[in-house]
Amino acid sequence: MPRLLTAEREMGKPYPTFGPWRSWQRRQLDMTVEEIGAGAPCGPVNPTSGALGTLTPLGYGDVVLTGGWLGAWQDRILAVTLPQVLDRVEGGEAVANLLRLTRRTQGPHQGMVFTDSDVYKTLEAVAWAMPAARPAGTGLDDGGTGPVEGSGAAALLRRAEEMVALLGQVQEADGYLNSWVQGTPGLERWSDPRMGHELYCAGHLFQAAVAAHVTGVLPELGRVAARFADLLVETFADSDYVDGHPEVETALVELYRVTGRAEYLDLARRQVDRRGHDWLGAGQRASYFQDGVPVRAATAAVGHAVRQLYLLAGVVDVAVETADAELLEAAVRLWDDLAAGKTYVTGAHGSRHRDEALGDAYELPPDRAYAETCAAIGAYQLAWRLLLATGEGRFADAMETLLYNAIAGAVSAEGDRYFYSNPLQLRTGHDGSDEDAPSGRLAWYACACCPPNVARLLSSVRSYLLTRTEDGVQIHHPATARVDVTVAGLPISLDLSTDYPYDGALLVTVETAGDMPWELALRVPSWCGRVTVTVDGGALDVGPSDGYVRLRRSWSGRHTVRLGLDMPVRTLAAHPRVDAVRGCVALARGPLLYALEQADLPRGVILEDVRLLAVRGVVTDGVVASGVEPGPRVRVEVTAVVRPSGPDLYAPVHLRDDPDAVTPTEPFRATLLPYHLWANRSPGAMRVWLPLAPLPLRSTPRPP
Amino acid sequence: MPRLLTAEREMGKPYPTFGPWRSWQRRQLDMTVEEIGAGAPCGPVNPTSGALGTLTPLGYGDVVLTGGWLGAWQDRILAVTLPQVLDRVEGGEAVANLLRLTRRTQGPHQGMVFTDSDVYKTLEAVAWAMPAARPAGTGLDDGGTGPVEGSGAAALLRRAEEMVALLGQVQEADGYLNSWVQGTPGLERWSDPRMGHELYCAGHLFQAAVAAHVTGVLPELGRVAARFADLLVETFADSDYVDGHPEVETALVELYRVTGRAEYLDLARRQVDRRGHDWLGAGQRASYFQDGVPVRAATAAVGHAVRQLYLLAGVVDVAVETADAELLEAAVRLWDDLAAGKTYVTGAHGSRHRDEALGDAYELPPDRAYAETCAAIGAYQLAWRLLLATGEGRFADAMETLLYNAIAGAVSAEGDRYFYSNPLQLRTGHDGSDEDAPSGRLAWYACACCPPNVARLLSSVRSYLLTRTEDGVQIHHPATARVDVTVAGLPISLDLSTDYPYDGALLVTVETAGDMPWELALRVPSWCGRVTVTVDGGALDVGPSDGYVRLRRSWSGRHTVRLGLDMPVRTLAAHPRVDAVRGCVALARGPLLYALEQADLPRGVILEDVRLLAVRGVVTDGVVASGVEPGPRVRVEVTAVVRPSGPDLYAPVHLRDDPDAVTPTEPFRATLLPYHLWANRSPGAMRVWLPLAPLPLRSTPRPP
Repeated sequence: MPRLLTAEREMGKPYPTFGPWRSWQRRQLDMTVEEIGAGAPCGPVNPTSGALGTLTPLGYGDVVLTGGWLGAWQDRILAVTLPQVLDRVEGGEAVANLLRLTRRTQGPHQGMVFTDSDVYKTLEAVAWAMPAARPAGTGLDDGGTGPVEGSGAAALLRRAEEMVALLGQVQEADGYLNSWVQGTPGLERWSDPRMGHELYCAGHLFQAAVAAHVTGVLPELGRVAARFADLLVETFADSDYVDGHPEVETALVELYRVTGRAEYLDLARRQVDRRGHDWLGAGQRASYFQDGVPVRAATAAVGHAVRQLYLLAGVVDVAVETADAELLEAAVRLWDDLAAGKTYVTGAHGSRHRDEALGDAYELPPDRAYAETCAAIGAYQLAWRLLLATGEGRFADAMETLLYNAIAGAVSAEGDRYFYSNPLQLRTGHDGSDEDAPSGRLAWYACACCPPNVARLLSSVRSYLLTRTEDGVQIHHPATARVDVTVAGLPISLDLSTDYPYDGALLVTVETAGDMPWELALRVPSWCGRVTVTVDGGALDVGPSDGYVRLRRSWSGRHTVRLGLDMPVRTLAAHPRVDAVRGCVALARGPLLYALEQADLPRGVILEDVRLLAVRGVVTDGVVASGVEPGPRVRVEVTAVVRPSGPDLYAPVHLRDDPDAVTPTEPFRATLLPYHLWANRSPGAMRVWLPLAPLPLRSTPRPP
Repeated sequence: MPRLLTAEREMGKPYPTFGPWRSWQRRQLDMTVEEIGAGAPCGPVNPTSGALGTLTPLGYGDVVLTGGWLGAWQDRILAVTLPQVLDRVEGGEAVANLLRLTRRTQGPHQGMVFTDSDVYKTLEAVAWAMPAARPAGTGLDDGGTGPVEGSGAAALLRRAEEMVALLGQVQEADGYLNSWVQGTPGLERWSDPRMGHELYCAGHLFQAAVAAHVTGVLPELGRVAARFADLLVETFADSDYVDGHPEVETALVELYRVTGRAEYLDLARRQVDRRGHDWLGAGQRASYFQDGVPVRAATAAVGHAVRQLYLLAGVVDVAVETADAELLEAAVRLWDDLAAGKTYVTGAHGSRHRDEALGDAYELPPDRAYAETCAAIGAYQLAWRLLLATGEGRFADAMETLLYNAIAGAVSAEGDRYFYSNPLQLRTGHDGSDEDAPSGRLAWYACACCPPNVARLLSSVRSYLLTRTEDGVQIHHPATARVDVTVAGLPISLDLSTDYPYDGALLVTVETAGDMPWELALRVPSWCGRVTVTVDGGALDVGPSDGYVRLRRSWSGRHTVRLGLDMPVRTLAAHPRVDAVRGCVALARGPLLYALEQADLPRGVILEDVRLLAVRGVVTDGVVASGVEPGPRVRVEVTAVVRPSGPDLYAPVHLRDDPDAVTPTEPFRATLLPYHLWANRSPGAMRVWLPLAPLPLRSTPRPP
């Protein structure tokens, strides 16, 4: 039975404050509100007030990154990544396929059937990036109204506006828009549900429109999206149609949230429930298309990793907005299945190149990890939705692991080259000729889903850092930022400062006028064994509860909170059922996983022969690489030996001795780099999981 | 520069003797010799007398399996596998695609573009099987002239004859024959060299024709093949065309060998040398198509495993027939690369499902082993060619490992179900929905290359067991067989008897009339550490030389030789660079690799948690499974423990202790089955590589 939808937004709810963009935001909103509805301009995920959930996102303008590691990355997205992505999208197949439909160029549709989604993701990225494009030196209350004319950001916005205009020209009278279908003579709409990606592309259009709406740019995009969404509502009113690639589900809910149009939510709900009945007729491959088992009944996360994760994001969105606890529990159950045996230590998912698939439980090979960048982004978005719904810190833990390892590692230090798959090991002599298993990051891909996906996530990253409740603010991720938020009518300013992820100290200056007590919650990551908290210099004896240090008091005036997360080097072992890394450990410090690269070994030592003897400690690089790493970079120093070996691929051993018990060479020192910085020098071998040093002697218990 | 071809066959060379089929063979040959040429009726690989090489195959009828493990398998091929394969090929897409061209049925070509090759491989299998289809109880000299009318074998032959007649009807006037191209309106011949498989299919036609010629059946097949081969010679005289799937190279040489037509050899040679220049335009995927590097320059075996191995078989054939030592060295070099780091302990090749590819060196995951059945067959055929060329026992070692493990494991004990990929590990809870990663053997595959490939290899397996030289006979593989061979004009009869692969004793009765000394060579597999030899009961102190015990003497009269290969259970470890099986051992005995299945564990023990403590010894099953295993089956008994584990996928450990050092449970016993017999009970987990038991305490050396 369809549940009653909580479609009507609280009309009295104020717009969230929006920092320096407030006036511009308001103005733009006034221009588009009639077309796109009566939503509130919040972040990428903005549950309505009637939704199931624990935490509420802050308004998109409430958080301004003012420096630090995340701020530097945001700047790099704006200065390097976005211009590069725009160059590729404008100059490549994606825009050419649209231009052909305006008869400005000739020829058939080129490239992947879903090149439109590259355009949409790029537009979404530009939209989210605009509030960060403020003139240098302007503060929070300068009343800026958009990127400075003539600035790089303004140029990006002009280019995006041109693409939006092109979309408007290409869109058909009834709202349909898909360059592959429109540009392929004789091809019917919706005739290839398995691989046509028509709803997938539509979903990315809707998400771009939501971003444009929230940030108050590209007003025409909302009209294009609304026309297409209305056509979908009409077309699929009584249809069993599902798309081979989930994505429209979450996008429709996001569109519902800013427009208040219940039809979008209802279509999303039906899309979720239609899946799992093999309507796509894929038989053995039904799991690839997420059409093998209804999500309510599913007990295991299976099939194509991105499809599974995008679907689950939509499942959570539908579940919270329709107050469908059973559906929410299904999403948590599948997350638990991923976390229990199908997640890489980098946070990534997808063990198989074949079908870009999640593998069996505990099948986690580091060398053939697919760990697609888009899957990491999907997992990040899913974890955020589950964090909002449940308030459980473990989801923030997962976001942190993903962001600082799987996602950060997908982009070069300069910000203009990308990994599509993100292995945890690259062998000496690796054949890097496969596009999605290269020896280093590539500037672009024939299947270009990942680069603009990185851009859209990172240009909106500040909206994923904090949340609020009725009587509190939660800092999930340390950052250097200014935050303005209203809790129970009380305006609060927070000034955050940290060298995270390289240092565990977070300084928070709280400023507020009112006496009303409220709770400041600071997340203590699960990796942290020892935490210190001071308020105005006085140490508190506050242990974390459910993953958060919770400070409830009246904060009237100005106070300084210091959170100290102890960051020793941690030695991690995988569950003993993970065959692929048996006898190995991975080294981590804080949220960062570390990796050993061939370039950091003594001459003549082959990475595959290295065995770990001991962790010595940390060293801090004096050198700042390419100006992109803010402040000192911390390396992990180890002692290692070389494990000698013969030529035989298989050789008899005596079981009573350890087969690996050989006399190793003299120990030497090597340093490990944060995993996300690998492959920024000349191509070479890399590994996260380091085999332990062999023992010269081993005695085994006697058999009975 | 093209080399001078040794195209002319020695006309004076006698037909090899041919056991009970001699008269039938001769008669049939007389019928077809004008059409197909003046070849000698030998085995599947029959180098001409002018070829490079060390060993000469026996004539196909020289070896008659009279029992034992191989004899039972040969019987099973005839009684079960071949009828089942014929049912599937006749009743499926393969024959339907041919029938459509005779207008007996309607509709477009169905299934893979290369379904014709299923027909050809089936015909080849039937042809090779016919000499084995002798009436029960008939001896070597009964003068039988074919399968008994009304027998199952005769019925198979009639069915094959009908398929050949159909091919004759479908073949075009100029000799072209390909049901996909002929049955697809508007599709030009040779228009899809990458994936069209036209020359690949032609190659399988030629190999079937050679089998029919050698065994004296299906005379029309030779005419069909010769017409098509002549068309190829004409079509590709001055062309750069190469096929995306190597296969025609080896087939053309085989056809040359039985016809004496130098044009076929010359076309094969040019095909080999055209490869490696990216003519197929596949760019990054050139290695998949074996078109990235000329084979003469290649240093690493790469790309699609079957394509690489089929190509190398053709390379050896061309090399030996054109006396091209450089080319032969290239083939040996690539074999060495496979053997050094890209071969599974089962003998199989292909580490990746993606692209069915060979992986990087030492990338050998047991769970995601692709290890395609066709690749194992290709490797077996390649190793045989290299054995003939070099005389080195290591190639016979590889053949043995492949046959008793990778290939035997691809077929069910009953002989009617098949694996396409042959993993060395199946996990508890494995999602077996992918066709080529199922939880058990399937009766057929959408891509049906493997089942008829098994049938054609096993129905000709007796031709791969022995060779001769100018003054000797070499027994490479123990078998129960009657052998009649002529060495330097001296007729020799050998009677072989063994319980191999379960027992290491081989009894050879030698009967000959002449006094001339000659050498009987018996291979000692590299796994054998202790060998005993007696002649007429007297022990000899003869160590193996280059992998063979060589007995040179006058053998006049009747003598009994007993070879005793010691067969303790061996514990094997992989090269320390093979990450995927670190800390594990595999157990083997004789040529058989062993595997532990869930079904053989105590109730409540999960296979993934089992750790090996000690090997206890061997036990002999009293039960004969399904009547298909001749004699007792030997199991390996071990002591094992359960390794307790917590729920965390990743957890911190103290590096100074062994992360795997936990207190295990009480030891228990379990038995391992030969790997090739796995998955013959209800589906369940299996593993070849067993982790070693954890140690309760471990101290590491102090770092410096």
